[in-house]
Amino acid sequence: MSATPPIYLDYNATTPVAPEVADAMLPFLREQFGNPSSSHPHGRAAARAVAEARDEVAALIGARGGEIVFTGCATEANNLALLGVAQALGDTRRHLVVSAVEHPAVMAPARRLEAQGWRLTVVPVDGHGRVSPDDVVRALRPDTALVSVMHANNEVGTIQPVAEIAALAHDRGILVHTDAAQSAGKVEVDVDRLGVDLLTLAGHKFYATKGVGALYVRAGTPIRSVLFGADQEHGLRPGTENVPAIVGLGAAARLARERLPEAGQGLRRLRDRLHQALAQGVPGLALNGHPEARLPNTLHVSFPGVSGRALLDAAAEVVAASVGSACHSEHDAVSGVLAAMSVDAGRARGAVRLSVGMMTTDDEIERAAAGLVSAWRRLAGR
Amino acid sequence: MSATPPIYLDYNATTPVAPEVADAMLPFLREQFGNPSSSHPHGRAAARAVAEARDEVAALIGARGGEIVFTGCATEANNLALLGVAQALGDTRRHLVVSAVEHPAVMAPARRLEAQGWRLTVVPVDGHGRVSPDDVVRALRPDTALVSVMHANNEVGTIQPVAEIAALAHDRGILVHTDAAQSAGKVEVDVDRLGVDLLTLAGHKFYATKGVGALYVRAGTPIRSVLFGADQEHGLRPGTENVPAIVGLGAAARLARERLPEAGQGLRRLRDRLHQALAQGVPGLALNGHPEARLPNTLHVSFPGVSGRALLDAAAEVVAASVGSACHSEHDAVSGVLAAMSVDAGRARGAVRLSVGMMTTDDEIERAAAGLVSAWRRLAGR
Repeated sequence: MSATPPIYLDYNATTPVAPEVADAMLPFLREQFGNPSSSHPHGRAAARAVAEARDEVAALIGARGGEIVFTGCATEANNLALLGVAQALGDTRRHLVVSAVEHPAVMAPARRLEAQGWRLTVVPVDGHGRVSPDDVVRALRPDTALVSVMHANNEVGTIQPVAEIAALAHDRGILVHTDAAQSAGKVEVDVDRLGVDLLTLAGHKFYATKGVGALYVRAGTPIRSVLFGADQEHGLRPGTENVPAIVGLGAAARLARERLPEAGQGLRRLRDRLHQALAQGVPGLALNGHPEARLPNTLHVSFPGVSGRALLDAAAEVVAASVGSACHSEHDAVSGVLAAMSVDAGRARGAVRLSVGMMTTDDEIERAAAGLVSAWRRLAGR
Repeated sequence: MSATPPIYLDYNATTPVAPEVADAMLPFLREQFGNPSSSHPHGRAAARAVAEARDEVAALIGARGGEIVFTGCATEANNLALLGVAQALGDTRRHLVVSAVEHPAVMAPARRLEAQGWRLTVVPVDGHGRVSPDDVVRALRPDTALVSVMHANNEVGTIQPVAEIAALAHDRGILVHTDAAQSAGKVEVDVDRLGVDLLTLAGHKFYATKGVGALYVRAGTPIRSVLFGADQEHGLRPGTENVPAIVGLGAAARLARERLPEAGQGLRRLRDRLHQALAQGVPGLALNGHPEARLPNTLHVSFPGVSGRALLDAAAEVVAASVGSACHSEHDAVSGVLAAMSVDAGRARGAVRLSVGMMTTDDEIERAAAGLVSAWRRLAGR
């Protein structure tokens, strides 16, 4: 990294680890090294730490500790949700419904099931990236096993009507999963208010570390493991528990719970200030995603007459952001999310995702806006 | 944990994180938090760190960086090896060979394939827990896809003749995997000398942290992903990379490479000293596992006339060890490994696994031996 790193506005790609989280993890990288499956004191101390973290994560989302399965990442949690329910129900139900704007971590296992003979319905989104519950209902069939609609989109930040969708699916006896990787810590995530059976969390999207995720599994939900080994995590995820990262996830969940809803308000204020400054400096700047039902930290905008990639390159010394999902940063192709929203090619080309976070300051917002406006003027010849 | 923790002799369950490893990880829990898939400086710094760790891990086992796939744990690496090769070859080859003493992380995916219609041959072991290459050859069939025989056993420490097995399997065009979770850092692990196509490493068995493993995949080996998402790790393991733990694995690999073969000699000296002291104090103490072809840190012994569980309970204030694999610590049933070795019931009942490590001292060995002998005398009425 250069001596003065650019201003980080890519919190949707990954967040820094909160100092409180790193501090909580450190003892488990030093003296507290036991294997939670060992019955001696070293092991029991590790098992207790994992149990406490499980309760903290559960508390963040209104669940019970026994309903939390720790995984190696959110992708694994999404795979467990889709493929694990498919394993449990596949003898009688072989139809799956997802939205058109799911992350690859949901879309890819869905396509995998399709390749294995499942029927897959991909429900469209409107111009704001929002799924219509009516469209989901129309997609449901007698053999539908699961509906998976993300809580909030990772690119444009649009929040989906998960609670309405879940109620309609449950009326028909169908399970509901939501990928809440982007929403936890930014907006309220409550499994009962959402009414979901399965919910995915990603540590490194809310100030815990990479290498840990969690799947909420409502008690009684039919699901089977997708990896095979010993019987950790209620038999749903084999392998020695990642104790330091799990402890960190617990600490991050506690922080998120304590800081909401003020955190959301603070993020929204910074995000909106950035939006205003850019809109003033860039005539024709267009907002993508839902104007209100949107993550408070996410500003996905299209700069007119330039490519988003070229703009970020031109502003690279000032701002670190992305043109879309980090998973696709190397490709200049139009984002699948924008395509699903029927965003026209020119607007899609000029799109940039700016996402703020807990460490973002007013000063950073001002400097970032100035840098982006200046880069746009140079590129657009204004 | 109590104020004075007992002497840790359970390094085969999990190791402490080496101070050098924790130090290497810390910057990636603090300022270096980028997502390796991001194209800005934060992301590129993370990608570089992952690439350097990949080269370090490759160097430990005589491989190239491009042949290393980082996973969330060794269990996941074993699942990827077995299920991933099965995905790639299953149209034409549907037979698998494993040894009778594999860890659940190999045995369970093997049983999973069997449940899906694969034929599974479980090759027996002798009284020392060793597989005969002749038995493996007899098990091979024209439709055998893969042979998976562990490098060293996690309970008794017996080292398998993997190189001989691999040569015989390769003569017949059959792929070979070995689970080297227990051997890395203790004995030489070289993919070319072993001649294997796939090899599993576990971070937390050689002084890296829990939550990271690796699968070596020899260039050209047919294999497919078992989890589905974005295209990290050559498309073989989706999900944002666990950068801090991967950096730690790289540091642990470098340490292991620098310290071998002296490390093995030091471990053997401590282990043999413990064995001598116990044999002097406990007439009839029996060694389990191979007398020579055995991990230098592992002492698996049966105490006469007592149960291993009761002995460890009686010595709990002095020694932290286990009666077998950590995965089974809660059960008092006879270990599957000892059963496969045809160890008689009384001897199996008295078995204890004592495993030393890099932090073990001569003083600890003396005190541990005294505590175990004293506990045995009390229990056995001697």
